[in-house]
Amino acid sequence: MSAAPTIVPVVLSGGSGTRLWPVSRRLYPKQFAPLVADRTMFQETVARLDGLGGIAEPLVVCNEDHGELAASQLAEIGVAAAHIVMEPQGRNTAPAAAVAALVAAESGGDPLLLILPADHVIEDVAAFHRGVTSGVPLASGGHLVTFGVVPDRPHTGYGYIQRGADLDGAFVVRRFVEKPDAATAADYLASGEYSWNSGMFLFRASRYLEELGHHAPGILAGATQSLEDAARVPPGLLLDEAAFAATPADSIDYAVMEHTERAAVVPLDAGWNDVGAWPALWEIADHDQSGNAIAGDVMLVDTTGSYVRAEHRLVSVVGLEDVVVVETADAVLIAARHRAQDVKAIVERLRDAGRPEAERHTDR
Amino acid sequence: MSAAPTIVPVVLSGGSGTRLWPVSRRLYPKQFAPLVADRTMFQETVARLDGLGGIAEPLVVCNEDHGELAASQLAEIGVAAAHIVMEPQGRNTAPAAAVAALVAAESGGDPLLLILPADHVIEDVAAFHRGVTSGVPLASGGHLVTFGVVPDRPHTGYGYIQRGADLDGAFVVRRFVEKPDAATAADYLASGEYSWNSGMFLFRASRYLEELGHHAPGILAGATQSLEDAARVPPGLLLDEAAFAATPADSIDYAVMEHTERAAVVPLDAGWNDVGAWPALWEIADHDQSGNAIAGDVMLVDTTGSYVRAEHRLVSVVGLEDVVVVETADAVLIAARHRAQDVKAIVERLRDAGRPEAERHTDR
Repeated sequence: MSAAPTIVPVVLSGGSGTRLWPVSRRLYPKQFAPLVADRTMFQETVARLDGLGGIAEPLVVCNEDHGELAASQLAEIGVAAAHIVMEPQGRNTAPAAAVAALVAAESGGDPLLLILPADHVIEDVAAFHRGVTSGVPLASGGHLVTFGVVPDRPHTGYGYIQRGADLDGAFVVRRFVEKPDAATAADYLASGEYSWNSGMFLFRASRYLEELGHHAPGILAGATQSLEDAARVPPGLLLDEAAFAATPADSIDYAVMEHTERAAVVPLDAGWNDVGAWPALWEIADHDQSGNAIAGDVMLVDTTGSYVRAEHRLVSVVGLEDVVVVETADAVLIAARHRAQDVKAIVERLRDAGRPEAERHTDR
Repeated sequence: MSAAPTIVPVVLSGGSGTRLWPVSRRLYPKQFAPLVADRTMFQETVARLDGLGGIAEPLVVCNEDHGELAASQLAEIGVAAAHIVMEPQGRNTAPAAAVAALVAAESGGDPLLLILPADHVIEDVAAFHRGVTSGVPLASGGHLVTFGVVPDRPHTGYGYIQRGADLDGAFVVRRFVEKPDAATAADYLASGEYSWNSGMFLFRASRYLEELGHHAPGILAGATQSLEDAARVPPGLLLDEAAFAATPADSIDYAVMEHTERAAVVPLDAGWNDVGAWPALWEIADHDQSGNAIAGDVMLVDTTGSYVRAEHRLVSVVGLEDVVVVETADAVLIAARHRAQDVKAIVERLRDAGRPEAERHTDR
């Protein structure tokens, strides 16, 4: 075998995290908040690579509003060197990965790109490392590897990947499927053939660009132009606004993975959670005997199944079940747990009203 | 008829308002908070006497921790002269009224005492005035008048008064009864003979002291001693600690009204509410089409039947029904509306832990 290939971690940090308001704000989205651990999810995404072989300095793709935040959070965890590519606007993941592939290719060689959303939780780092390591030979050989999370329940909030033939410990991807209804999800779970689409990928930069050229040439052209016309703006590179705005917005899945003939899926059983909304935080947290998960200065009386987070003052809950309470310096959210996705409606109202609580944390 | 008698309003302000935490704190109890109107309930209690004939300067009985607060709140509404009697501890209403009667008697004459708890809401001031006025001849003639609130539903949280024979537009009290169960309350309501015991009274100072001497001589003796040994402490008179601690604690109802043969009840239909706990605030507030009552910076999505009060920051509620949310600078309460009485359990825990949130408002 040749020397271990270089792996460039590409941290996709473009999400806005609206459903995790009031902790997540436009200028301080969820991946930059210490929601789950002392470190932020963005920091954890980079830090959990420690110990993996062949890892190059990370390449971060984020919104231009968050470049300084990303740089300072990397510095906090001792990562001094990183490429930070700033997007003037979000265009979904396929253009972001294209820019990352082009930047990575500039340095010569043909590294592997490990595409990592910045807002995922992975509890079992060793299992994550094993998954990445087992994907390396496939990706080195030209496959586009996706990591398929081994499902533990019939979740209807994720897309699924059906596996096909064995492929050196991984599997050929038979097909990608959209978020199923409950009955379909139960069938998927029972079959043992399906995994959740994690949004993490491993492929050679050249292979991704090649497939993009076949299946989404507009994205390749737009990303190339955005990078050619990019400006050096501390702490990194700011993509050209006009060129990037003209680049079609699409996901890596839709633009490439569903079309390539060389998609492979590596099973990943690593305590993965995409932390999309407050109920996910409740799920992954430790619970008391009544099924409550609390953070901060919280007092509960006869309360069950609830997530209660106090950031700045005492929060007390009496006689409720299955609620989400999130308290910050300038805003408090109280929601039925099964309705916590609808916090988006609050954020939209705040934006429409031009209120600062949608933008940043203020200290009233 | 002789000249209209002097009426000394006795404002009983000794309540702690635990069930209205976190607005109500030990050092800032509910009657001193602008919970219902721009003015506090204490201020409203005094201000609503404007226009009644023969009213002397008010006599306030409050805890020694609240003397300055009472004086400054009276000054805010332009009441410069008032007697403020401070209790070293609460001994219920009978000793407080006894001290008030003794103080009022000192000035010579035998004024009527209008006993007014400081934490009641009365929406119809004109009806209140009519009620007091109609009680004056009875009280002047030696009756001990209680004001019986005309019930509009079978409330199980109040004591009831059953009326007997007509008495110049009022009624002889047949009996006082304890808080009934729901079926009994419904019977009371249907009978038309019962009213709620409001805790407001009108009687001659001498008559109250006389009855007290018969039925509760320990209270009379204790109150007398507490006043003899009282100290001048700004802004008023501080009752002697040892003597007052030795005075039996009892209510005007138990100590006197249930024993006197000259109890009269004047019907009062004046939009009265004793504002005992958060559900009462919800009841008396204006409601939106979904039955919500809000105060402050509140955003609701699919929320019904709820009381949401934001004092210092944005509070948003999504997908809940029948909840109470009260936000202050240093504490937030979220409770099922029918469990809001149990906020007491939170306050007890805070006290046991020596936490400031039970004592005062802090600004975190």
